[in-house]
Amino acid sequence: MEFLQQSFSVKFEYKVFFTTGLFELTNTGFNDFLEADSTSTSVKKILFVADQDVLKANPALAGQIKAYFTTYKAAQLIPEIISMPGGEIIKNDESYFSKLLDIINHYNIDRHSYVAAIGGGSLLDMAGYAAAVAHRGVKHIRIPTTVLSQNDSGVGVKNSINYFGKKNFLGTFVPPVAVFNDDRFLLTLSDRDYRSGIAEAIKVSLIKDAQFFEWLENNVTALVARDGDTMNYLIKRCAELHLNHIAGLDPFEKGSSRPLDFGHWSAHKLEQLTNFKVLHGEAVAMGIALDTVYSNLSGRLSTDETHRVINLIKKVGFEITHPLLEVTNNDSPILVGLQEFREHLGGELTIMLLTQIGTGVEVHEMDAALIKHAGEILKTEYALSAV
Amino acid sequence: MEFLQQSFSVKFEYKVFFTTGLFELTNTGFNDFLEADSTSTSVKKILFVADQDVLKANPALAGQIKAYFTTYKAAQLIPEIISMPGGEIIKNDESYFSKLLDIINHYNIDRHSYVAAIGGGSLLDMAGYAAAVAHRGVKHIRIPTTVLSQNDSGVGVKNSINYFGKKNFLGTFVPPVAVFNDDRFLLTLSDRDYRSGIAEAIKVSLIKDAQFFEWLENNVTALVARDGDTMNYLIKRCAELHLNHIAGLDPFEKGSSRPLDFGHWSAHKLEQLTNFKVLHGEAVAMGIALDTVYSNLSGRLSTDETHRVINLIKKVGFEITHPLLEVTNNDSPILVGLQEFREHLGGELTIMLLTQIGTGVEVHEMDAALIKHAGEILKTEYALSAV
Repeated sequence: MEFLQQSFSVKFEYKVFFTTGLFELTNTGFNDFLEADSTSTSVKKILFVADQDVLKANPALAGQIKAYFTTYKAAQLIPEIISMPGGEIIKNDESYFSKLLDIINHYNIDRHSYVAAIGGGSLLDMAGYAAAVAHRGVKHIRIPTTVLSQNDSGVGVKNSINYFGKKNFLGTFVPPVAVFNDDRFLLTLSDRDYRSGIAEAIKVSLIKDAQFFEWLENNVTALVARDGDTMNYLIKRCAELHLNHIAGLDPFEKGSSRPLDFGHWSAHKLEQLTNFKVLHGEAVAMGIALDTVYSNLSGRLSTDETHRVINLIKKVGFEITHPLLEVTNNDSPILVGLQEFREHLGGELTIMLLTQIGTGVEVHEMDAALIKHAGEILKTEYALSAV
Repeated sequence: MEFLQQSFSVKFEYKVFFTTGLFELTNTGFNDFLEADSTSTSVKKILFVADQDVLKANPALAGQIKAYFTTYKAAQLIPEIISMPGGEIIKNDESYFSKLLDIINHYNIDRHSYVAAIGGGSLLDMAGYAAAVAHRGVKHIRIPTTVLSQNDSGVGVKNSINYFGKKNFLGTFVPPVAVFNDDRFLLTLSDRDYRSGIAEAIKVSLIKDAQFFEWLENNVTALVARDGDTMNYLIKRCAELHLNHIAGLDPFEKGSSRPLDFGHWSAHKLEQLTNFKVLHGEAVAMGIALDTVYSNLSGRLSTDETHRVINLIKKVGFEITHPLLEVTNNDSPILVGLQEFREHLGGELTIMLLTQIGTGVEVHEMDAALIKHAGEILKTEYALSAV
């Protein structure tokens, strides 16, 4: 059949900045970025949408942003700072997405203008999706406020909302134009939220970087004590490993390989079944524990290294398993979750396991009896072992 | 401010095929494509959504598709061929978009599976958008059925729906995985629809390819008489110029330059004001006439070449102007449309004009008095001149 061949490449570039007090008047970094980013002579507008709990926990924030754009003029601030709930509700209830589109339209935010989102992963996901599709893409700036979003989801290229009750059913691969990680936001997190973000660092160390895993082992006490410098190092290294992975073979995930989803197949199901009462990081920690023990039971990972992984997870303060992760029969939720993950990937299961700390391997089958066994010993001998 | 730099390129490739009788059993091209496109061992499904008028005009089509996938097995056909209206209604009424998402979900169309759309530009735009955002992108095959979509919109990288009454307010830049241009579909087009598609060929010749413009001048009689080979050459050359342009500097239109929108700023307004009773190609022909005469009046284009352009447009059978394109006062719709186009681009107007046939130049201002003058002489001397 006769044809014309189309072929082109699109370059995507953005910076992930690290700062303290992003909107303090002495901090010119945000304005410097906006000035350097000019692609036209048009007036650029900037619309902020922020997690209502972040605004409450940082009562000076809205005023600071207004004062900042009174002093610095690289973009014209939309004076209304949009307040929306954080958490899964903002992705589940389509009205938030529609409302943000409405506001983008109302203020004539065009393709040279910005939607800047301040919040955790869920709010960033929704706002990023709205920005990605409005006018086929207005510019999106992410200002993640949790450990989890600063070191993982917030620095990536995905956005989404839930639909038909399915997580991330609607979304795009559209990178932000910039990410600003401000460590001040971490100060007002609850211990539980703070700790939860450490799970993704453990995950990425296990599949990418044994040295980083050792660093986590050596610094877990300082991390749990919320030492700022230690957490800043964790976030930066974790973000870097995440960025490097994306820039690798398959930024927009055309294949089935999802190495960064190590430990996530069971975690997603657990979050959903507990209606997100188990936090993402907590679920991921249990998912890592399960897939680590499975790696050991299936003869891939040494028992010594398995103990080190479980120990680190426990030292952070995570639970290592949950009744909903136990296999009691063929219809146990976790086996249903495995099947759903297979369907999500398009029929061929691809799961990351470990061969040693720092090195993963992909498998295309999981054995139900071994999953059951892994769950049992997590509940018994590993749960009882000293940390 | 400290930062990590992210930088990667994503390669996009697809073929635009040209064929006759795409789903005849002797034509293995479609199945060959599906077989070669395998990215996983998963079962690939294919869901067809087709313009209801195309299905009516080609009553054997649905049965042909079913017979084709009974013989060829590179993908598993979803037996329900989805029928939807063509034209602007499918982009204006969000329920069609929602319905298609619902169907994608219902049949578990995943990222290794296909949504194949059969129809004109509007249906392809809507289906392409639904495919682009479902699961962050299922594979999309375009089967354009009009001259316009085969030579222009159908081969490009954009998709969209209208929202808030604004054309293309929601959409993405996501290329199809393949385009199949089947000239059989052109046989059942009305003369008006058939002719309408020639406008984009005139447009692209004027800004890109003087030789192609001469070819159009030399072949206009055969084109109007619906000679198949002549139209096939037009479609292929027009598609090729379009593809080459996209593969050039700015595939995803990050800048303000829109050379392929030559003649379109006034055309969009005219379509909208006439509630799409004036077809896109008809409006574009008038928009080309206006911007060509404007190019002449502003001293950029010779009078001789201006006459050639207007003559060709008239020979195809297009009207060269419309009462709604006339400037009678400062609030005339066309001046409002110019202002809206400026806002759409983000404040800085960028309009393509001609310096000679085959060569465009971008300007950032249009003079209202000259637009008025251009409209007047299109209505008088050019309207009256012999073809």
